Amino acid sequence: MRIFLDAMGGDNAPQAPVEGAIEALRRFPNLEISLAGKLDAITPLLADAEDVRSRITLVDAPEVITNDESPVMGVRTKKQSATVIGMLQLRDQQVDGFVSAGSTGAVLAGGMFRLGRIPGVERPALAPLLPNGKGHFLLIDCGANVDCQSDWLVQFGIMGNAYMKGVMGMQEPRVGLINIGAESEKGNKLVKETYPKMENAPYHFIGNVEARDITGDAADVLVCDGFSGNLILKFMEGVAGTLMGMIKKEMMADTRGKVAGVIAKPAFRRVKKAMDYTEVGGAPLLGVNGAVTKAHGSSNGHAIACAIAQCMKMVDGHVVDIIRDGMEKLAAEEA
Amino acid sequence: MRIFLDAMGGDNAPQAPVEGAIEALRRFPNLEISLAGKLDAITPLLADAEDVRSRITLVDAPEVITNDESPVMGVRTKKQSATVIGMLQLRDQQVDGFVSAGSTGAVLAGGMFRLGRIPGVERPALAPLLPNGKGHFLLIDCGANVDCQSDWLVQFGIMGNAYMKGVMGMQEPRVGLINIGAESEKGNKLVKETYPKMENAPYHFIGNVEARDITGDAADVLVCDGFSGNLILKFMEGVAGTLMGMIKKEMMADTRGKVAGVIAKPAFRRVKKAMDYTEVGGAPLLGVNGAVTKAHGSSNGHAIACAIAQCMKMVDGHVVDIIRDGMEKLAAEEA
Repeated sequence: MRIFLDAMGGDNAPQAPVEGAIEALRRFPNLEISLAGKLDAITPLLADAEDVRSRITLVDAPEVITNDESPVMGVRTKKQSATVIGMLQLRDQQVDGFVSAGSTGAVLAGGMFRLGRIPGVERPALAPLLPNGKGHFLLIDCGANVDCQSDWLVQFGIMGNAYMKGVMGMQEPRVGLINIGAESEKGNKLVKETYPKMENAPYHFIGNVEARDITGDAADVLVCDGFSGNLILKFMEGVAGTLMGMIKKEMMADTRGKVAGVIAKPAFRRVKKAMDYTEVGGAPLLGVNGAVTKAHGSSNGHAIACAIAQCMKMVDGHVVDIIRDGMEKLAAEEA
Repeated sequence: MRIFLDAMGGDNAPQAPVEGAIEALRRFPNLEISLAGKLDAITPLLADAEDVRSRITLVDAPEVITNDESPVMGVRTKKQSATVIGMLQLRDQQVDGFVSAGSTGAVLAGGMFRLGRIPGVERPALAPLLPNGKGHFLLIDCGANVDCQSDWLVQFGIMGNAYMKGVMGMQEPRVGLINIGAESEKGNKLVKETYPKMENAPYHFIGNVEARDITGDAADVLVCDGFSGNLILKFMEGVAGTLMGMIKKEMMADTRGKVAGVIAKPAFRRVKKAMDYTEVGGAPLLGVNGAVTKAHGSSNGHAIACAIAQCMKMVDGHVVDIIRDGMEKLAAEEA
């Protein structure tokens, strides 16, 4: 299995991607990595990686698409960027998967215009796995498509369903539609239009899921437009942080609490780890013709290694093929 | 000060509203209550309230608009319901404020069609005060308007600003627009259209607020469409519940944690109370011609008393007048 890794992407590049590559190679003996970026910046960082060096292929990619430029223009003009080179190598099956912690917009644009969409998919979507106390649920879309049409949401269901089948080994993932009420007639124009279409889609649609039940293991795949999804993703982070801060403050307010805080430290650490979605690795970009994982921009080496592992699971789980099958079934039902 | 209270509204009616009325009357010597509902159901519950009985005026309102019927039809046909009678009494200044834990739709429809809107306000909005660890912020709209236009959001800013000035005594509340990025060009079509209009609105607009900063005291008034607002409101409840559950579970997993849990109980109780938005009372309905407070459907007596107190603050703070002034300023700037 060969993964293409953008060594120049993310806040901590190239250190974090290179460290992540080395960690992943040491963990997975069957892994090979195409490491792309500015060679003079990458090469010195490989000094202590003699043990895995033979499984690293360096790819010269001197250009970088930054967060400050137009992603579409970047993908069009910067042909020597890791994003463009990697997407083309994935398209041509020179590699099995693609991982980047760089500009989300560039990964999206590269996926759309260089790698290409799975037939029938109108909009690829970003879909992080998020903790719900018991396990994980897939949130799709979390920000790639801020203004959505109902057909796209129906397709997000196909993609999310495929991911949970292929990567998580679920037989029949529960697909829910995020809404402000449980009844089918509730919601804004978009979700009201989406609901009846999802009832006829080739997956196990369980109906509307209210926001208060999202982290209550109500569904395995939660579908929404990218604006709502991004709100949910970021708000989860915010509320968890505020709540942990309040607990800390309240515990420090009296001696009893202080004592309890010291004793309970390991328990708190476990909760923090369970709620930390960067531990999962990154968000897959679903709907394109290949396994693409977008790692967090702030990823450290370990988070990059996790994203690589996640991308490998996507390859092993044949997620792209399952989505392709699902899209064919959807087209057949609509015909 | 006289508040009209719907004695038939909410899951625990008429007990909870009657208990809440009695609690509030005992707390506020200047308060009088018009208690409306089925008289034979209410009267027995007043047996132990001789001390405040003289400040209660019973209003015969035998009809109830339930959650299961169309609110607009309900308001149109059930003229003997507390909602309709109360809104008309508020319009005619027979009472100073209106409180109900009944059907949200009926309160909205009653406010729109019986009480009437403040000139210039296109859509009244529901705006709960929510905890942010430090104090509270006002979320507007939280579900009254699921599909919004940018002008409505601009007006929500006027209403939220007025509430924080009148009720919370703030000189210059910070009004933020909930968005998926901090930069002005970020967002979906609606917020992109709203941003420049808010820059010219007569309040202190501080720009976009990302969801991760909502509970981080980033703004005093947070404006969004009612679909997003409802997601945020309910998700806050859900995440807090999930997180507290996880902490409890992790603490029970070892002896250290169990000991800490017992010791830290008071601290946890304080956090739970601070995060409990029902403690605030209810959500004001802003933009109508009077002080209207919608209490939680699940309110107990104490929560109803809190909602009455909140409604009284709205009257004392002249919130309706401040909104009226704001709408005039907005119209002048747009002219």
